[in-house]
Amino acid sequence: MQFSLSQASLPVFELHLNALSAILDKAEAFAAAKNIDPQVLMRSRLAPDMFDLTRQVQVSTDQARRGSARLADAEAPSYEDNETTIAELKARLAKTIAFLKTLDGKKIDAAAERDISFPLGPSITGHMKGDDYLNHFLLPNFYFHVTAAYAILRHCGMDIGKRDFLGAIPIKMT
Amino acid sequence: MQFSLSQASLPVFELHLNALSAILDKAEAFAAAKNIDPQVLMRSRLAPDMFDLTRQVQVSTDQARRGSARLADAEAPSYEDNETTIAELKARLAKTIAFLKTLDGKKIDAAAERDISFPLGPSITGHMKGDDYLNHFLLPNFYFHVTAAYAILRHCGMDIGKRDFLGAIPIKMT
Repeated sequence: MQFSLSQASLPVFELHLNALSAILDKAEAFAAAKNIDPQVLMRSRLAPDMFDLTRQVQVSTDQARRGSARLADAEAPSYEDNETTIAELKARLAKTIAFLKTLDGKKIDAAAERDISFPLGPSITGHMKGDDYLNHFLLPNFYFHVTAAYAILRHCGMDIGKRDFLGAIPIKMT
Repeated sequence: MQFSLSQASLPVFELHLNALSAILDKAEAFAAAKNIDPQVLMRSRLAPDMFDLTRQVQVSTDQARRGSARLADAEAPSYEDNETTIAELKARLAKTIAFLKTLDGKKIDAAAERDISFPLGPSITGHMKGDDYLNHFLLPNFYFHVTAAYAILRHCGMDIGKRDFLGAIPIKMT
């Protein structure tokens, strides 16, 4: 009857990064059907001082890989933030998922009481206990950016719904 | 070194419902400063077939109270969805938080392997194990709606940031 930090993190990230990849497939098909340059979608944003779609996807992968690596006391790979096509964004999602699969869930489980330190801008460091970090920083930030990515595409008129957002969840329906 | 279903649910909901209440305070002040009818904000949405701000706030409280009640094997209070002012939306957030405080965390912790059944529209019932329900349905849905509420107000030009979204998290900064 236990619940673990690894269970509350790794499968959640993997599921939503896969869901985001499937949404990007639909974005590519939408752009083709409407004869829109996919760059228009990639550069769309909900407010002038919010991230565009490209950056929302990049930051989603940053949260997942850096946050999980901090909890697992591992090194996260460095990405260059140079994606210019939907295919490249999808490749970034895929390599993030592949990295998550290399992490040791038991190390993440053991991080509940451990101090997690992380940069908050150039000169500030945040400190949280591992369980608080997952619960109150990593998950809300991750969900924020995957929801924003979804909402940008809805705002652009794409016909996607909550099921696309939720992804391949373990549910039975009767 | 354990993590529990109650820890991953109740404080998360309470924190974000409080954060949403503080964001609504700022929305009221923004409307007053710009001489905008607050109804305009309450009825704003990111796409014609997405919920408006009022409904996003209502559904955030629905997810929190119904979902937590299902996990705790308790009865959730019924709300009428009749809020027409920001003050009334704030009252709904407050009464939801008060309800969450009445739930037994130990019962939620014991729900990991229990079958949780919940309506998905008028004729379909979803079934998930308690831990999957929290991890892959309740938390993503909750975060979806609180993020959408925030994003609607950002789209309306409100000067709020990630700290408003994250709320009063247990963090030390050096």
